[in-house]
Amino acid sequence: MIMPMKMLEESLNKKVSLLLKDNRILQGILSGYDDYMNMVLDEVEESGDNVTKKIGTVVIRGSNVVRIVPL
Amino acid sequence: MIMPMKMLEESLNKKVSLLLKDNRILQGILSGYDDYMNMVLDEVEESGDNVTKKIGTVVIRGSNVVRIVPL
Amino acid sequence: MIMPMKMLEESLNKKVSLLLKDNRILQGILSGYDDYMNMVLDEVEESGDNVTKKIGTVVIRGSNVVRIVPL
Amino acid sequence: MIMPMKMLEESLNKKVSLLLKDNRILQGILSGYDDYMNMVLDEVEESGDNVTKKIGTVVIRGSNVVRIVPL
Amino acid sequence: MIMPMKMLEESLNKKVSLLLKDNRILQGILSGYDDYMNMVLDEVEESGDNVTKKIGTVVIRGSNVVRIVPL
Amino acid sequence: MIMPMKMLEESLNKKVSLLLKDNRILQGILSGYDDYMNMVLDEVEESGDNVTKKIGTVVIRGSNVVRIVPL
Amino acid sequence: MIMPMKMLEESLNKKVSLLLKDNRILQGILSGYDDYMNMVLDEVEESGDNVTKKIGTVVIRGSNVVRIVPL
Repeated sequence: MIMPMKMLEESLNKKVSLLLKDNRILQGILSGYDDYMNMVLDEVEESGDNVTKKIGTVVIRGSNVVRIVPL
Repeated sequence: MIMPMKMLEESLNKKVSLLLKDNRILQGILSGYDDYMNMVLDEVEESGDNVTKKIGTVVIRGSNVVRIVPL
Repeated sequence: MIMPMKMLEESLNKKVSLLLKDNRILQGILSGYDDYMNMVLDEVEESGDNVTKKIGTVVIRGSNVVRIVPL
Repeated sequence: MIMPMKMLEESLNKKVSLLLKDNRILQGILSGYDDYMNMVLDEVEESGDNVTKKIGTVVIRGSNVVRIVPL
Repeated sequence: MIMPMKMLEESLNKKVSLLLKDNRILQGILSGYDDYMNMVLDEVEESGDNVTKKIGTVVIRGSNVVRIVPL
Repeated sequence: MIMPMKMLEESLNKKVSLLLKDNRILQGILSGYDDYMNMVLDEVEESGDNVTKKIGTVVIRGSNVVRIVPL
Repeated sequence: MIMPMKMLEESLNKKVSLLLKDNRILQGILSGYDDYMNMVLDEVEESGDNVTKKIGTVVIRGSNVVRIVPL
């Protein structure tokens, strides 16, 4: 068994894809997270509504997270 | 009586189908979970809006989970 | 007075109908529950949008439950 | 001053009308409740979308309750 | 400074207007409340969708309350 | 650094504009608040849907608050 | 690893872009925050629905925050 938080730990400093509740997808390097699944992503590209843009570093509030995919 | 968390324990390393609040369905091997029903799924196939795609390993935030079906 | 949790206890191993927030209805044998109203149902038939399908055993996250009707 | 929970206590074994967040209305005998406003209703008639049906005993999860009217 | 709960205390046994999240407005005598802003209103008139009806005493679950206006 | 609650303290007895989740805007004198951002406003003018009306004193449940602007 | 709250600390007195759940975007100087991600922004410009307006200082309730981008 691998705990969800352990999976996040293993994804540190690696590229992940983050799906938010508003259907935005953020791809970037996971550089931090906490127990609420608040996260820090670096080198982020955000896609949604057929548009992609680079937005550098992002802090995401955990309550908006649906799923995280290590890439 | 079988506790819901015990049912998840018995599903470890087995294939499950996960329905999320946004109607996405994830099928994969349950490799971890915690008390909030945060989960780790491996070998995931996601289906929704008539599209199916393979997305490998996924961490799901429990607050988005509707139901889990052991397959 | 009968406490809601006591009512669930009396419904154990009996058939119940479960209404979820997304309007799905699950009918099955209540084989477990916990304080959050997370539940385990066996021999489940799910109906919604004029379709009924059998889905065996299901773990439901309590936050999605609207009401439970002992049958 | 009458506490809301005291008002529920006084309504025990009496007929109440319960409005849920999805606009369903349940009328029945209040036979139990707890601190989360989870409730047990007996001899329930449910109305919504111009349809009324009898559904016997019901356990309602408190998070779906909008208001309770003693009848 | 007047604490919100103190303002409710001062409104006891007086007429208030209560706006709920579903846009219903309840006018009645505030006869009780608790820390979650669960409330008991007496002599209630409910208005919404261009209809007004008298519904006597009502217990409202605090999570549905938007604002209270002392009248 | 100024804590959000400290900012509210500094706004006491001054005019603020309050945006609620349902897009209503309330302008009035902030006469109280608590840790949940429940608030008491005096001399309130509410605007929404191209209509403005005076509604005197209002108690707002914090869970409906989006942002507060000191005026 | 950088904790999300630490990232906010490093953004103090710097310009950030804040996305809210209602799709409004606020740009301004982050002058405070707390553990719930309640925040104080100064010199704020708010954009949404093709309109931008200056609104000075703003207190934002953390539950409405989706993501914060240091600029």
